[in-house]
Amino acid sequence: MESLKNNLEILDTLSTLPYPEAVKKYTPILTEYIIQKLAQNNRILPENLQLVTASYLNKPGKYLRPRLVMLTCEAAGKAPSKALPAAAAMEMFHNWTLIHDDIIDHDTIRRNHPTGHVFGAELGKKAWSLADKSSKEYGLSLAILSGDVLQGQVFQLLSSLHDLDARVILSLINRLSGKLYNELLAGEQLDIDLSNRHISEIEVAEIMEMMRLKTGSLLQFCAEIGYAIGQNMPVEENYTAQQLGLFAESCGIAFQLQDDILGIYGDPQKLGKNVGSDLREGKHTVLLRATWQNASKSEQQLIEKNVGNPNASQEDLCKIKQMMLDKKIVDKIKAIAEGKITFAMQTLHASIPDAPIRQHLELWAESMTQRHQ
Amino acid sequence: MESLKNNLEILDTLSTLPYPEAVKKYTPILTEYIIQKLAQNNRILPENLQLVTASYLNKPGKYLRPRLVMLTCEAAGKAPSKALPAAAAMEMFHNWTLIHDDIIDHDTIRRNHPTGHVFGAELGKKAWSLADKSSKEYGLSLAILSGDVLQGQVFQLLSSLHDLDARVILSLINRLSGKLYNELLAGEQLDIDLSNRHISEIEVAEIMEMMRLKTGSLLQFCAEIGYAIGQNMPVEENYTAQQLGLFAESCGIAFQLQDDILGIYGDPQKLGKNVGSDLREGKHTVLLRATWQNASKSEQQLIEKNVGNPNASQEDLCKIKQMMLDKKIVDKIKAIAEGKITFAMQTLHASIPDAPIRQHLELWAESMTQRHQ
Repeated sequence: MESLKNNLEILDTLSTLPYPEAVKKYTPILTEYIIQKLAQNNRILPENLQLVTASYLNKPGKYLRPRLVMLTCEAAGKAPSKALPAAAAMEMFHNWTLIHDDIIDHDTIRRNHPTGHVFGAELGKKAWSLADKSSKEYGLSLAILSGDVLQGQVFQLLSSLHDLDARVILSLINRLSGKLYNELLAGEQLDIDLSNRHISEIEVAEIMEMMRLKTGSLLQFCAEIGYAIGQNMPVEENYTAQQLGLFAESCGIAFQLQDDILGIYGDPQKLGKNVGSDLREGKHTVLLRATWQNASKSEQQLIEKNVGNPNASQEDLCKIKQMMLDKKIVDKIKAIAEGKITFAMQTLHASIPDAPIRQHLELWAESMTQRHQ
Repeated sequence: MESLKNNLEILDTLSTLPYPEAVKKYTPILTEYIIQKLAQNNRILPENLQLVTASYLNKPGKYLRPRLVMLTCEAAGKAPSKALPAAAAMEMFHNWTLIHDDIIDHDTIRRNHPTGHVFGAELGKKAWSLADKSSKEYGLSLAILSGDVLQGQVFQLLSSLHDLDARVILSLINRLSGKLYNELLAGEQLDIDLSNRHISEIEVAEIMEMMRLKTGSLLQFCAEIGYAIGQNMPVEENYTAQQLGLFAESCGIAFQLQDDILGIYGDPQKLGKNVGSDLREGKHTVLLRATWQNASKSEQQLIEKNVGNPNASQEDLCKIKQMMLDKKIVDKIKAIAEGKITFAMQTLHASIPDAPIRQHLELWAESMTQRHQ
């Protein structure tokens, strides 16, 4: 506890550092805080459930979401540590969606480690000497329940916020449990439903909407809640919080477009997850849809034969990847992503005055489309 | 909306009716309220996700939990309609745990209808002409996500409570997301872990603790929250709310003991779920553990051969069922359940004065061990 208190003081001085240095220092403080909260709150859970629940949070990503919460809190004129519980809550929120999403997508690797259900299956083998099939079921149960545990923790942290009007905290919980939950889960389901339709029947706008819901909505909420906490006002009554939300949402869509490119062209080592799987699993990205629209009959046949086919040959997948490059589709998607960033920056500039904290927010936004490169 | 308003007025007069009549009238009002809230709040969700989310709530059980919330609110001297949003929230809470639990237990029938993942698989076949394996995966995803949707709705309803101090509402959200979430999920996981241990190595006390966590904790919270809302006070500051919580928790354990007996001896038609499955699935109940302790070597061998064996013959299972009767184990478990009810009644009597509402609470408690008979 003592070390955490000291860390909180460090946290409030981070904005005076150059951005990359600040980012590096945020990570251990956030991780320590999150892991400590989990340990405090979840101590009655059976060991394996504790282990799976903590597994994603022990191996943090770039903390794009909690850092955004703290940055917008600072933009509202308050110390970032004031928003720390909310920042941790948003990281937990993100992680429960990842754990449940990884089950749905059959993903096996996340941040270079086994996903929740895969890790859970390993624990089942170790603890109960389960056979293959039973251990998979055990892992599935653990992953479902650990996502549920984290959902409780989100509200636990938010309802423990202090130095804020209870009415303001309630408004944030109301917005999160209503707008955010529905948008994010609508996005998840749209993603699944899109994957069941033929690529020729999908509009680019539908995929963009799915991205806005699935990725944009959480980032939007992170920007809103940090500013709302800093100003001690509900988001609904604070225009700047709403504008910062739009800034972050737009960054989120750019991030997702970039993610789709990485899902096909990225380095598996750096990315910490299986690559090329997007094609093999038949993920209906804007990238794929735009390629389809610009493809000849024979190229469309190549796509139909291989995309979504678990037995597709490496050679055919490479042909499709090359086709996307040759047709400049990758460049086009990158340009759309850049357009989203430009809009985001304009919104940011119209929202808050030029100051070091605004530059940090700009750098935060830029880091989204420059990751893993 | 008009009809719901009228219904709210009816709701507040129900306590003047004889208990069984009141119970009958509660059901349609609660169902209408819940379905209307879901329709309002979830309209942006894709259709199949809406359908699975509403599927359990469309076919209500006996509303033991929401009725308890309204009864304790009335015991605190307030109109039951004041607690209606919280009552609906508790029914939603119960239902998300059922949807996720039915995945984990591979249950296929609930309240005489397909469980969430089974219904979801049917929707996948209908909407996307999915093959068997793909439709099962689609159903699993829908069931996971619809449980998540309902978790959001719980907090959406609680954070919308009005005529209450914001501080009190926050305290209820804090208790639910902390104590209740952890206890209930610890109970779920303990149940899974117990099923992986050999029956000879399990203590009766461990199974009782699992029941307290998995079933008792939610009923406890329901009793607490109704009274706390009626008194506009946090549970932590209200001794009577806490005592009513203990009353309900004790009823919950009795309910679960009864449920275990029904899981082996109940009528599948009346119960609305597969019966005998408890033995076939190897569910480690107090009933089974007590039978094991009182069994001869050859009887233990019969149990070992058949319990948890999906291919067990109907004949062998009947032998085990008869053994439990002959050894008076069923009678013993019933006696334990009755002891829990006696404790519950004593706690109730010590908590609130003799009045019609207390009689309703007594009848509520009795209905728990008398259902389906």
